[in-house]
Amino acid sequence: MMAVPNDSRPPIVAMVGGGQLARMTHQAAIALGQSLRVLAVSPDDPAAQVAPDVVIGAHTDPEALRKAASGASALTFDHEHVPTELLEMLVAEGVTVAPPPEALVHAQDKLVMRRKLEALGAPIPRFTAVSGIEDVDAFSEHIGGAPIVVKTVRGGYDGRGVVLTRDLAHARATVEGYLADGVAVLLEERVAMRRELSALVARSPFGQGAAWPIVETVQRDGICVTVLAPAPGLPDEVAAEAEQLGLRLAAELGVVGVLAVELFETTDRALLVNELAMRPHNSGHWTMDGAVTSQFEQHIRAVLDYPLGDTTAIAPVTVMANILGAQEEPSMGVDERLHHLFGRIPEAKVHLYGKAARPGRKVGHVNVVGTDLDRVRERAERAAHWLSHAQWTDGWDGHA
Amino acid sequence: MMAVPNDSRPPIVAMVGGGQLARMTHQAAIALGQSLRVLAVSPDDPAAQVAPDVVIGAHTDPEALRKAASGASALTFDHEHVPTELLEMLVAEGVTVAPPPEALVHAQDKLVMRRKLEALGAPIPRFTAVSGIEDVDAFSEHIGGAPIVVKTVRGGYDGRGVVLTRDLAHARATVEGYLADGVAVLLEERVAMRRELSALVARSPFGQGAAWPIVETVQRDGICVTVLAPAPGLPDEVAAEAEQLGLRLAAELGVVGVLAVELFETTDRALLVNELAMRPHNSGHWTMDGAVTSQFEQHIRAVLDYPLGDTTAIAPVTVMANILGAQEEPSMGVDERLHHLFGRIPEAKVHLYGKAARPGRKVGHVNVVGTDLDRVRERAERAAHWLSHAQWTDGWDGHA
Repeated sequence: MMAVPNDSRPPIVAMVGGGQLARMTHQAAIALGQSLRVLAVSPDDPAAQVAPDVVIGAHTDPEALRKAASGASALTFDHEHVPTELLEMLVAEGVTVAPPPEALVHAQDKLVMRRKLEALGAPIPRFTAVSGIEDVDAFSEHIGGAPIVVKTVRGGYDGRGVVLTRDLAHARATVEGYLADGVAVLLEERVAMRRELSALVARSPFGQGAAWPIVETVQRDGICVTVLAPAPGLPDEVAAEAEQLGLRLAAELGVVGVLAVELFETTDRALLVNELAMRPHNSGHWTMDGAVTSQFEQHIRAVLDYPLGDTTAIAPVTVMANILGAQEEPSMGVDERLHHLFGRIPEAKVHLYGKAARPGRKVGHVNVVGTDLDRVRERAERAAHWLSHAQWTDGWDGHA
Repeated sequence: MMAVPNDSRPPIVAMVGGGQLARMTHQAAIALGQSLRVLAVSPDDPAAQVAPDVVIGAHTDPEALRKAASGASALTFDHEHVPTELLEMLVAEGVTVAPPPEALVHAQDKLVMRRKLEALGAPIPRFTAVSGIEDVDAFSEHIGGAPIVVKTVRGGYDGRGVVLTRDLAHARATVEGYLADGVAVLLEERVAMRRELSALVARSPFGQGAAWPIVETVQRDGICVTVLAPAPGLPDEVAAEAEQLGLRLAAELGVVGVLAVELFETTDRALLVNELAMRPHNSGHWTMDGAVTSQFEQHIRAVLDYPLGDTTAIAPVTVMANILGAQEEPSMGVDERLHHLFGRIPEAKVHLYGKAARPGRKVGHVNVVGTDLDRVRERAERAAHWLSHAQWTDGWDGHA
């Protein structure tokens, strides 16, 4: 056994960003005897509403970052927006940044990520950096006239910063607009895909890796709306390939914590890496109710270099459906919507983020666990739709 | 649909007492978009460590209680120690107290409880109130010389205030001692029992009831150490009888929230009510990882009069083992113990309360979910023993 000080104080994990990921990480921290420290922009942020150890400040403010990191065993992230130079400053000052900046940059800068994955031989769509408008025509020729996706190199999320262009003229105009604004972009071929998958893994500094079952992520308008766990009908060998890819990338990139590898499954069952996220991820919210170890507990375990938890699913099917802010304000408040929902779907596991509803904004999610995919999916999506709109989807009359 | 104000602010549930039950209720509140308000004695209390909305004060202080209740949709409890007259004061001032004082008194005063259960025809051991020492001999004769249990009418928990007397002389001396201290006691016959069970139910003001599967509680020195869910080998009809009894008592007593009915299963498979608790209860900690709806979420749903959640177990077996403070301080800190545990038993679900370890004190618990009772129980108990003592139980060498 190791000789260690018999310190009964729990370790402090500090998280930059006070959004829902920090909020749910705090829930997991409580079970481990801890309380998450949160660097939040406002006391109204989702995590700041529920955690007592809050530093108010911006993720771009060196002093706020230092204050959040002070006395913490590790500093980790609810989002990818902290500038690399600030993270390197913290590392130089002795802070354990997890994931470390040299790993995190692959989730911050899509061009760095694409080049690194290319160098590693990971499967990716064809891409090119853009230095001028002339690159559009050259790339179009290179990919044989296939449709082009224009992506901002930094800062995109939930479909923002990603433009699926209609034709070459649209691609040129899109790039021109970005370049005029001084925004760096890259081009990718738009692949013929069957669906999107996500490989969620965790890695500890010790080097242990753990993979959850591969899930299907269903997008609408570039936003993930539903996650099916496990991905239905996925051949075992493709699932194994995706898990191995996730674990390999976590190791090669030096990730510490949770890594989500967003994948395209092409029409011929090939896998291509779309995006990377180095934090708990929407595609892993199902683990809160559907796996032995949730991604939030696992993230804490990983950044503290604890051995990782069991990632086994607890049931044949779990479906996660996001609750998105409706276009029009619902006719009843959240509390009343919960009443009706719980009366109709008593097995729905609701997770609300304490956020004001704005159209399309993720304000919570619902997990339903069961055995029959169609039934479980229907109930999860109905529950989420109800909480968004205070209207039952077709076929249900709103009365139990 | 009802016409209700479209209020997006979440309801506030206030809980009197900042112990582990409040701590775990806060975890559940977060998922529902809420943040539990806690009336704690100290900022170091388990719940006060992890929740931001804390009122520091005593549960016997009317002003502290008023402050905790201010603006709350309901005031509920982590323990049974608030004097009835203070609760009646709050009710008179318009506070929604859940459970209401006229129900709660049955979990506060064992004589009131025994008399009420007798009036309801619920199965209980024979008992008597004690007004003088002469009552001991009379009761002994009444029960044909069976062993006598002496219980304080108020204030007992975890085996305190309960004396299993050896013989009549011991019973007399015990009662004499209590009476000399001005402590009211009652006498019960000590029944020949097979084991202890717990019927955990919840009830909402609307009158909805929900029962979890009946569990076996394993005691050592009067303290619950292990809970087996469901109770192994319990005949279906006895399980149904216990669930019905729990639901009936919740309704008859007007309980709002979780009710734990601690039961004796006698050697001839009869059930007798031992104690009542009107709050989340140690015998329900298994529900956090082993049931669709945990007792903590259910308690919140009940006190807010939401429809209740699904109480189905998610697996054939869940075992909960309490982590009790060891007699001697372990050779390594909690953090290091967690490292070793997670390396050995990755499926253990650990819940730590942030309490300093004192001998015999409950400082956390471990849940293990699975299919084989012997295996699941062994792993849960080994995990809890390790976290208590930093020593593996026999048969394990402490190395993975």
